[in-house]
Amino acid sequence: MLLIRRHVSVLSKPLMLTMMINSPTTYKTSNIPSNVLKSRKLFMSGGNDIKVTEKHNDLVKVREILKYKGVDVFIIPSDDPHMSEYVAPYYGRREFITGFTGSAGTAVIMQEKALLFVDGRYHNQADIEVNLNDWEVMKQGIKGVPTLLEYLSNSLPSGSTIGIDPSLHSASAVNALNNKLESKSINVKLLESNPIDDVWIQDRPAPPAGKVRIHSIEYAGLSVKEKIESIRKVMNANNAKALTITSLDEIAWLYNIRGCDVPCNPVTVSFSILTDAKAILFIDTAKLPDEIEKHLTKNNVEIRPYNEMYEYTKSLGSSDKVWVDPKTANYLVYNSVGKMNRILKDSPIILMKACKNGDELKGMRSCHIRDGAAMCEFFCWLENEITHRSISEVEVDEKVTSFRAKYGLFIEPSFPTIAGCNSNGAIIHYRAVKETCKMVTNNDMLLLDSGGQYIDGTTDVTRTIHLGTPTSYQIEMFTRVLKGNIGIDSRIFPVGTAGCFLDTYAREHLWAIGKDYIHGTGHGVGAALNVHEGPHRISRVVDAQPLIPGMIVSNEPGYYEKDNFGIRIENLLVVVERKDIPSFGGNGFLGFEKLTHIPIQQKLIDFKMLTQSEKDWLNKYNQDIREKVLAIVKDDKTKQWIIDNTKPV
Amino acid sequence: MLLIRRHVSVLSKPLMLTMMINSPTTYKTSNIPSNVLKSRKLFMSGGNDIKVTEKHNDLVKVREILKYKGVDVFIIPSDDPHMSEYVAPYYGRREFITGFTGSAGTAVIMQEKALLFVDGRYHNQADIEVNLNDWEVMKQGIKGVPTLLEYLSNSLPSGSTIGIDPSLHSASAVNALNNKLESKSINVKLLESNPIDDVWIQDRPAPPAGKVRIHSIEYAGLSVKEKIESIRKVMNANNAKALTITSLDEIAWLYNIRGCDVPCNPVTVSFSILTDAKAILFIDTAKLPDEIEKHLTKNNVEIRPYNEMYEYTKSLGSSDKVWVDPKTANYLVYNSVGKMNRILKDSPIILMKACKNGDELKGMRSCHIRDGAAMCEFFCWLENEITHRSISEVEVDEKVTSFRAKYGLFIEPSFPTIAGCNSNGAIIHYRAVKETCKMVTNNDMLLLDSGGQYIDGTTDVTRTIHLGTPTSYQIEMFTRVLKGNIGIDSRIFPVGTAGCFLDTYAREHLWAIGKDYIHGTGHGVGAALNVHEGPHRISRVVDAQPLIPGMIVSNEPGYYEKDNFGIRIENLLVVVERKDIPSFGGNGFLGFEKLTHIPIQQKLIDFKMLTQSEKDWLNKYNQDIREKVLAIVKDDKTKQWIIDNTKPV
Repeated sequence: MLLIRRHVSVLSKPLMLTMMINSPTTYKTSNIPSNVLKSRKLFMSGGNDIKVTEKHNDLVKVREILKYKGVDVFIIPSDDPHMSEYVAPYYGRREFITGFTGSAGTAVIMQEKALLFVDGRYHNQADIEVNLNDWEVMKQGIKGVPTLLEYLSNSLPSGSTIGIDPSLHSASAVNALNNKLESKSINVKLLESNPIDDVWIQDRPAPPAGKVRIHSIEYAGLSVKEKIESIRKVMNANNAKALTITSLDEIAWLYNIRGCDVPCNPVTVSFSILTDAKAILFIDTAKLPDEIEKHLTKNNVEIRPYNEMYEYTKSLGSSDKVWVDPKTANYLVYNSVGKMNRILKDSPIILMKACKNGDELKGMRSCHIRDGAAMCEFFCWLENEITHRSISEVEVDEKVTSFRAKYGLFIEPSFPTIAGCNSNGAIIHYRAVKETCKMVTNNDMLLLDSGGQYIDGTTDVTRTIHLGTPTSYQIEMFTRVLKGNIGIDSRIFPVGTAGCFLDTYAREHLWAIGKDYIHGTGHGVGAALNVHEGPHRISRVVDAQPLIPGMIVSNEPGYYEKDNFGIRIENLLVVVERKDIPSFGGNGFLGFEKLTHIPIQQKLIDFKMLTQSEKDWLNKYNQDIREKVLAIVKDDKTKQWIIDNTKPV
Repeated sequence: MLLIRRHVSVLSKPLMLTMMINSPTTYKTSNIPSNVLKSRKLFMSGGNDIKVTEKHNDLVKVREILKYKGVDVFIIPSDDPHMSEYVAPYYGRREFITGFTGSAGTAVIMQEKALLFVDGRYHNQADIEVNLNDWEVMKQGIKGVPTLLEYLSNSLPSGSTIGIDPSLHSASAVNALNNKLESKSINVKLLESNPIDDVWIQDRPAPPAGKVRIHSIEYAGLSVKEKIESIRKVMNANNAKALTITSLDEIAWLYNIRGCDVPCNPVTVSFSILTDAKAILFIDTAKLPDEIEKHLTKNNVEIRPYNEMYEYTKSLGSSDKVWVDPKTANYLVYNSVGKMNRILKDSPIILMKACKNGDELKGMRSCHIRDGAAMCEFFCWLENEITHRSISEVEVDEKVTSFRAKYGLFIEPSFPTIAGCNSNGAIIHYRAVKETCKMVTNNDMLLLDSGGQYIDGTTDVTRTIHLGTPTSYQIEMFTRVLKGNIGIDSRIFPVGTAGCFLDTYAREHLWAIGKDYIHGTGHGVGAALNVHEGPHRISRVVDAQPLIPGMIVSNEPGYYEKDNFGIRIENLLVVVERKDIPSFGGNGFLGFEKLTHIPIQQKLIDFKMLTQSEKDWLNKYNQDIREKVLAIVKDDKTKQWIIDNTKPV
């Protein structure tokens, strides 16, 4: 699943650049709340007068509140208070007020006008979904259209007051905003309540209330006590008396718990603070079954109401040094710590979480074998079924999920499936919708990017297959993408090498004929956690973060030809020590181990284009699939399918 | 010629890291001043009582001056006022006071002790050269030994005064020093005169006084007027009323002049200021022949005495916005501009100078053919001569230079030759000295890194040859290095790609067996200018600077085995547009053109290890050498040598 930057916030780098190089994320809406579904239908059907009037009235009400509060400009980002990549429906304030359902976009409400800033993926969708009498769509990337920060800095009269809900912007973003506007005498006002909340009452989804479960030590590998101890050591070394933990996956990792507040992401909405003596979890206690309370108490974790986080931070931060990660902490958390007491650094948990321990890897390996079996069964079913009927992209999505569910410990998809037939495969952020999706036939190419959340791990795989006879051009391009995948996969590199140094291997066979793909090559993946995590990546963006043993990274080169077809081949890899490579006084060498075990379609490969070592790579991979996946597949047809699709070449 | 960071200054990054990744520079002392020669002899002969007493007395005198000035700690860097990589002998203050002749090192004098900070290359040499009764050698990279900045920050009592000569430290370095020491109440005092100058009177080399010559428009390609115009456009876009130009190669480039103040670097010691109306060159007028004065006057360049730079900058900088490059401007220049009036950015000339125009490339291509002929004639001579006598490394150096001088437009070496036989080849910063150098025999391996300054261009090439029968291990390692060289050379990459993304190709065949080399892969090269220039490089250090057509970069992978042998294969390359690669809506693709035309010794290549496309590369290269170099070689033996050494494989 491609990592695509989501935010069009004040902090955003020039957006098109980010997209071009890193490529943006598809919004995950598998549990779409009713109001959003309604506006999606609105989008599909082309309009609905009642809805439009309602939205207009809501905007008028917000303007009245702003006037009362003395706010000239109100910024509404897509974020939750945890700067999550995906947010619970309760936080969908921007969608509510604009009617725009896209994943990324920032709304700005003033008395005379209202603006919606969206990137290139959403230029058309925003035009259709919003009421253009009320909203002006600021199409980022089009020449002459200012960014949000440019707009605020250049168009507002001196003396203006910008209002923000400080819990919905990262500390870094607000600091950047203040820096930019300081010299213009534009004031940024932190609002105590969010004006949207005063208007969004009917139909608003409830606050996240999913039950929390234990992530067993069998899969977590390290006890809560061990994790707390390691973090306290780092805190100590940094003279931090306390650490604020605001990212939801960091909290889930630290306390060996999982939740279900956010679709596809097994996290629970909460905050935490770690001091040298205490560990406190701020959470709605209704979400905690008895066994969780016991698990937390046993580990000396104090439980307090979610909203007490801010007061608690304030009480600590008035006298003690408190570590705050300004990129992920919202401004309200940051601001609760006295200026002289802030230690501003990346959270120490990010790197600890990224480097998986032996038990986490065991779970990841295990779920990938089951995931492989499920995918093989799906492909076997699809190739058979397609011979007598066509199948919609949405059915592909549903079927993939149902096969995953068959193989045990499955919870939900790890992100919304991307199933793109022919030209839809070339739309990098494609999401099939019933009303408009394509029918896949036995003459088509299908790009399928999907993954599962399991009790023991997280998967993410892309395969591209042709259901009929591919053209020689499709075969050539597929083979070039495959050679790129093998190029990354078979790398050997010394300890200390950053992911960006490998990226070129994924692209060189495309560059050789003047082609490329406009997204990154690899993102970090959590263990039974979020499908996107940092701090590492394989990308054309220069980034000094080294790859470290235990890190999981996707390897997903692709090729996309607009209105024609798309190709992506994605495996998850673990960074491993290459103990077989002698190290002469150095720190040793690293390489990759494949987690994903699913055949790569042979009819799309031009074997003449492969070197002998690339053929060896393929044979070894197929042999591994036979050994590991064949053993757990029950269905005889699928067994034969695996044998047929893993033939030595 | 390897680019090796020279400074052990307060600004230095952790030194060993820089060395490991980027690898340090050899000091260039082809015109060694008498005093340094003396201390070198001292180093060779093991000691000299009179000299030691003299040095001790000088140190005592400096301490008296410091006491009088109220300075507790005095820092003496290796720099000149232009932050040059190589300095004129007149600026050798650190060598004078310490007796240490190494290229990199910073001295610190206090009343009770005196310290010399040196990196790993010089741990032994410093111990031998300095009087250990007076000096403590601070061996950087050894555990527990603080860096200069750590020492100053942790060991000085609060209230101490550090004295510096502000003309010998970059603005960035002094700012870093101030930032670090501010909270410790340690004061940095800018001294108006340098205490060493009050002591170093006898035997001090004269200030640089080399005559300036015109760099003809035939080779420069752009007139002074055109260059000034381009810079003024950039100044204007940055609201800069004036630009201070302090790097010597930037001044030489801008005014189409060359000098001979610094060995191996055709620059003249001077400053310049460009305003929207004026161009001023601050220089000792005695260095300007009439034709140069005319050339400058014709281009409306005002000439003023060297030392007036500071006052002039002050007069501008009190009211106008002045552009200062804090990395290359000394602190005195920086400090002459009012705080609110400084525009702190990299000099705009760096990038303009790096992207060569058609005429500069023509000169570079042309001198490389002559350089190739000279090198072929040298290798032919050597292989013949070695059959009946052994030849010292120093004679190799002298002979190489004499063959270069035969082929026209030659000025001097572009850096001190590195001629390392067998184990000396493994010493990356090796410099052969008569008293200690090895004799090369017909059973030895020789690494030869040398280059020439010509009127029309600059060369820099490394070849490694075996004069007898290489071992199969030497052949394997040479072939791996060659494969790395070809890997860089044959790259195709899209516009916007930074050099660091290519670096891995140079190393992958070494990494595959657990080996590596501890220096960068490529540095920028000037056109008839300094052999090292920025802003681009090919390196393991993450650096976002893209490679741009017209940039010249070295391609010099290597392999070094301590006490055994060293291998390096270096060609200079130009970044060129690959118009033969179609670009589908993108910005186009780039590649490299080889400037260097000198055969790679075939007996060191294991052809079985080469792919067909690597063999094709070699055949094409040899064919090019035959076409271009053979035509200008006069000597028949050399002609035959070229034919023998460029046989198709």
